[in-house]
Amino acid sequence: MSNSADKRRRRALVPVERCPMAQAAILLGDRWMLLILREAFYGVVRYDDMIDDLGISRSVLTDRLARLVEAGVLERRAYREPSARTRDAYVLTDSGRQLAPVFVALTEWGEVNALRRRAPVVTLDRQSGAQVRCRLVDEDGEPVPIERLVLKKR
Amino acid sequence: MSNSADKRRRRALVPVERCPMAQAAILLGDRWMLLILREAFYGVVRYDDMIDDLGISRSVLTDRLARLVEAGVLERRAYREPSARTRDAYVLTDSGRQLAPVFVALTEWGEVNALRRRAPVVTLDRQSGAQVRCRLVDEDGEPVPIERLVLKKR
Repeated sequence: MSNSADKRRRRALVPVERCPMAQAAILLGDRWMLLILREAFYGVVRYDDMIDDLGISRSVLTDRLARLVEAGVLERRAYREPSARTRDAYVLTDSGRQLAPVFVALTEWGEVNALRRRAPVVTLDRQSGAQVRCRLVDEDGEPVPIERLVLKKR
Repeated sequence: MSNSADKRRRRALVPVERCPMAQAAILLGDRWMLLILREAFYGVVRYDDMIDDLGISRSVLTDRLARLVEAGVLERRAYREPSARTRDAYVLTDSGRQLAPVFVALTEWGEVNALRRRAPVVTLDRQSGAQVRCRLVDEDGEPVPIERLVLKKR
């Protein structure tokens, strides 16, 4: 991934409509969508709990939840508490759970570059208790430093 | 990362202001910011080339470039072509390059969940030519399946 001001290459290798990164950004690139998905990864599933956590307006939350359901990353599940009406809980779909590497990578970047201090939360392997990190690796699982990355057409 | 509609836990483990993922989302969670960073990863550095690639309006591009520079992920570098005035190129800073795992993770997710077909571009290790992927691993580099992830307070 070149950092040089290459005078020859003027256009992206792949147009937006055929670029998976761009399509993911178009689908999810919204502060509130990402913050709502953060709630889902923390196991927060109820509308009112998201309101309390995020300080989001009801109209924006309703809109973004509908878009996340439409995008197939959240799904509605009905639940009912004693002597209350049925409500919708919002939980990650398989597609939503597959965003875990994006969220771990954003967390690691955010710790150093946005929060700028040690995060009070950590991602662990439930089985071993080991800390989990997001790493760029080759086919043998060997780490590849960022300086060596290059984008190529297939 | 729980998918069950856990009736006890109602709030995120960490409030937004102390959550590195939330802070990263607040800083970068915008379709245009992510699409401009995509340009940077593709080595596109010029204002007019970004306009051509993204179909973005000049006012939005100017605003988002300023925000990305302010956030420390892009930096301006003056360049001049023969018989033209000096212009600014926009290149990734160290902090911007550290977003590579986020972009590779978004690309992998987008290929399956947004583009829904094989991407025409691939990330390689310049040295070995091997394909590079984003993986969640433990301290020994062993892959950890998404189902085993759990978030804990430190």
